Amino acid sequence: MTIFPEDLIRSVTVETSSKILLVVIDGLGGLPVDGRTELEVGSLPNLDRLASQSICGLIDPIAPGITPGSGPSHLALFGYDPVRYQIGRGVLEAVGVGMDLEKGDLAARGNFATVDSKGTVVDRRAGRISTERNQQLCRALQKQIETIEGVRVIIESGREHRFVVVFRGDDLNEGLTDADPQKEGKKAALSVALHEGARRSASVVNGFIKRATELLQGHPPSNTVLLRGFSQVPDIPNMRDLFKIRAGAIASYPMYRGLARLVGMEILETGETVEDEINTIMNHFEDFEFFFFHIKEPDIKGEDGDFQGKVAALEKIDTLIPEIVKLEPDVLAITGDHSTPSILGSHSWHPNPVIIFSKYVRTDSVVRFTERECAIGGLGRIPAVNLIPILLANALKMKKFGA
Amino acid sequence: MTIFPEDLIRSVTVETSSKILLVVIDGLGGLPVDGRTELEVGSLPNLDRLASQSICGLIDPIAPGITPGSGPSHLALFGYDPVRYQIGRGVLEAVGVGMDLEKGDLAARGNFATVDSKGTVVDRRAGRISTERNQQLCRALQKQIETIEGVRVIIESGREHRFVVVFRGDDLNEGLTDADPQKEGKKAALSVALHEGARRSASVVNGFIKRATELLQGHPPSNTVLLRGFSQVPDIPNMRDLFKIRAGAIASYPMYRGLARLVGMEILETGETVEDEINTIMNHFEDFEFFFFHIKEPDIKGEDGDFQGKVAALEKIDTLIPEIVKLEPDVLAITGDHSTPSILGSHSWHPNPVIIFSKYVRTDSVVRFTERECAIGGLGRIPAVNLIPILLANALKMKKFGA
Repeated sequence: MTIFPEDLIRSVTVETSSKILLVVIDGLGGLPVDGRTELEVGSLPNLDRLASQSICGLIDPIAPGITPGSGPSHLALFGYDPVRYQIGRGVLEAVGVGMDLEKGDLAARGNFATVDSKGTVVDRRAGRISTERNQQLCRALQKQIETIEGVRVIIESGREHRFVVVFRGDDLNEGLTDADPQKEGKKAALSVALHEGARRSASVVNGFIKRATELLQGHPPSNTVLLRGFSQVPDIPNMRDLFKIRAGAIASYPMYRGLARLVGMEILETGETVEDEINTIMNHFEDFEFFFFHIKEPDIKGEDGDFQGKVAALEKIDTLIPEIVKLEPDVLAITGDHSTPSILGSHSWHPNPVIIFSKYVRTDSVVRFTERECAIGGLGRIPAVNLIPILLANALKMKKFGA
Repeated sequence: MTIFPEDLIRSVTVETSSKILLVVIDGLGGLPVDGRTELEVGSLPNLDRLASQSICGLIDPIAPGITPGSGPSHLALFGYDPVRYQIGRGVLEAVGVGMDLEKGDLAARGNFATVDSKGTVVDRRAGRISTERNQQLCRALQKQIETIEGVRVIIESGREHRFVVVFRGDDLNEGLTDADPQKEGKKAALSVALHEGARRSASVVNGFIKRATELLQGHPPSNTVLLRGFSQVPDIPNMRDLFKIRAGAIASYPMYRGLARLVGMEILETGETVEDEINTIMNHFEDFEFFFFHIKEPDIKGEDGDFQGKVAALEKIDTLIPEIVKLEPDVLAITGDHSTPSILGSHSWHPNPVIIFSKYVRTDSVVRFTERECAIGGLGRIPAVNLIPILLANALKMKKFGA
C-alpha cells in the first residue's frame, strides 16, 4: 500500500485552526441494476453540484479486490494502515455495544449457553433467551463478580443470548484459544494460552467462566457461558498526536463511535437521525479541527438488498448537504467506508467515490457524484488510507517533508 | 506497491465452484506508429464489444517504468509479489525447456565451450555446434553421469551450444559464483561457494564440470562445459492453498507452462495453435476453477519489430474471442504480461490494457480495447499483482477482511 510512514506524518503535521469535515456515508458505493447504480438512479442535485466544484476520485477501502469489515474500513479512513492495526472480534463487539475500552483491556464475545450434566454443550444459545433475561443475568453476574485474580471484570449485555466481557488489569494478553467448542454435542472447553505470556490471562478468563457457571446453576437454560474472539485494543497512536487535530465524532451507531474512540476522537452525544447529527455538529463546530460525521442508512438498505430504499436514503442525505456545506469547513470530504451494492446485499470490494471540496484542489470534469463519473475524476484511484494526508494538506496542516 | 499480504489473502479466500478465465496475450501493449498503436490499427470487433460490456483499465506488470522479463510478469499476473519471489536464470531456463522442477532443485544454464591446452576459453560457444550435435552430447553425458556425490544430475539439451543442468538432492544451495569467465581469453573457472551453506553445492557442481570435461575430451570443439545462473525454485505458495482454486494452465510454449507449474497449476496438454488451446480448455472446463490461457504470437511479432504482423496476430485472436466467451466463465479477464511495442522490438515498461467481464463490475465508457481507451477505464491504473484479488472477488471467492 502507498502509505507515508506514521513517524514521518507525525513529523510534518502542524496545529492550525483550520477545519476538516469528513462525511462517511456507510455502504455508499453500489452496482448497476438495469444499467444504473443507486447513486446514478438517485436525484442528488446537491451532491452533484458539490462534485462539480470539487476534485473527485475513487478510494479503495483496503486494496483492490478486498472486501473490508467496518473496523478496517474506518481505520483506513481515519488515516491508519488497516493491515498494521487489526481489531479483533471481541474488541469490535465491545465498542459495538458502546463500551469504553482502555489500552491493555482484553475483550471477548460471550454467549449464554446450556450444558448437560456431563458438560456437553446442548444449546450454544440457551434457547435464544430474551434480551431482558440476558440483561438480568448480566446484572446478576456483574454484581457478584467484580474481579478475578485482581483483574477487573466488566460485563455488558447484548441481544438475546449475546454479551461482551472485558477484563481490565495489568499484563493481559490476547493469545488465547476460544473457550467455545463452536458446535453443539461437544464439551464446553476452557481457554488455553497460546504462549507463555498469555498464561495469566487464561487463568483469569477460566476463573471467570468457572465462577459464572457456578452462579448460573440456579438459572436454566442458561447454565454456562462460552467466550470467543479474545482480543486487545491495538496500540494505535492518537489522532491528536499524529495529525495535530482535536477530532470529534458524530455517529448514531455505537460501533462507529467506538472505532472513533480507539483513535482518540471525542464522542459527541447525538440522536438517531441525520438531522440530529447535523444539530450536534452545529453545536460543537468551534470545538474541534476535525469532524468524523457518520451516516448509517444507505448501508442498511444495501444489506437488505433494497435498491430503491438505498436510492431514497441517498436522496434524503442529499437534501441535508446544504446544511453541511453551510458550516463552511476549510476542507469537506464526502465518501463511503465500503460499498454495499443492493444486488449483493453485503459489503463489497468495489472502490467508493469521493469528493474533496477545498480552496486548494484542482477541480475536474466530474459533474455527478457517481461511481463511474468519479472513476475519471482528478484524484484517480487511491487507497483510502491516503485520504487523511490529502485532507490535512488541503487544510494547510502539513509542513514540507525534507529540506 | 499495493499488495495485500499473502497470509491475509489466505485467510479470506474460500472454495467455490465459480470459474475464472485469465487470457494472457503475450506482449499485448504497443506504441503508436503514424499515430496509432497495433491495437488501434487492428480491426478487433469482438474484443471491442467485450470491452464495452466490461470494466477496463491499465495494469503495470511490476511498477511504473519497470520492464519485466517473462518470469516476474507472469508471477505478478498469477497474484504473487514479483519482487518477493524472484526466479533465477537457471530455473527460468529449466522451465523454459520443459523440465519439471522440484523444491530444492538447483538449476544452471550451460554452454558447450572450447578451451585450449592451458584451460583458457577460446570459444564460449564451441563454434555454435548444431542442436543435433548438442543432443548427442547431452545424451552421452547423461548416460555416464547419473549422480555426483549422491546428488542426481539431470541434463536437458537446448539450441546450438546451450543446455540446462539440474542437480536434485538434499541441502543444495544457490549461493554459487558462475563457473564461466563470461569472456574468451580467460581461464575456465570452477564455481565458488559464496557462503558456508553452499560449500557442498560447489563441490557437486565442480565435480560435474570436471567429470563432463573428462568425458568430452574426445569431442572437439566441445571439450568443456561452462555453467552460470545457479538458482533454486523459490518457495512459492501453491495457488490452491493461497487462493482455494484448482488452476489449469494452457500454453503452447514450455516456459509459460513451467512458470504455471511453479505456482502449482496443472498443465493441460495442448497443441501449437490458439485453436488447439481453445479445444483444450473446452475439454477441461469442468475440471478447474481457474484457467491461465496463454497466447504467444503478438509478442513474437513485436520482438521481430513487425508492426503489421502484430496487428494481424491480434486480429486473428479477435476472431477466436467468441469461442472463449461461449465458455461462460463467471469472470473473464483479458490482458497482457507486458507490452512488446513493435518500434522497440523488445519487452517494454508500458502498462497493458485489461478487460474484466463479470456480473459484478461497474461497466465504464470504454468501447475499444486499446491502450488509450483503457487508460480512462473504470479500473484506473493498478499493479498487475492486484488483478487476481479482483478476479477472486468478482467470482465471490473472498470473505470479508476484519470484523
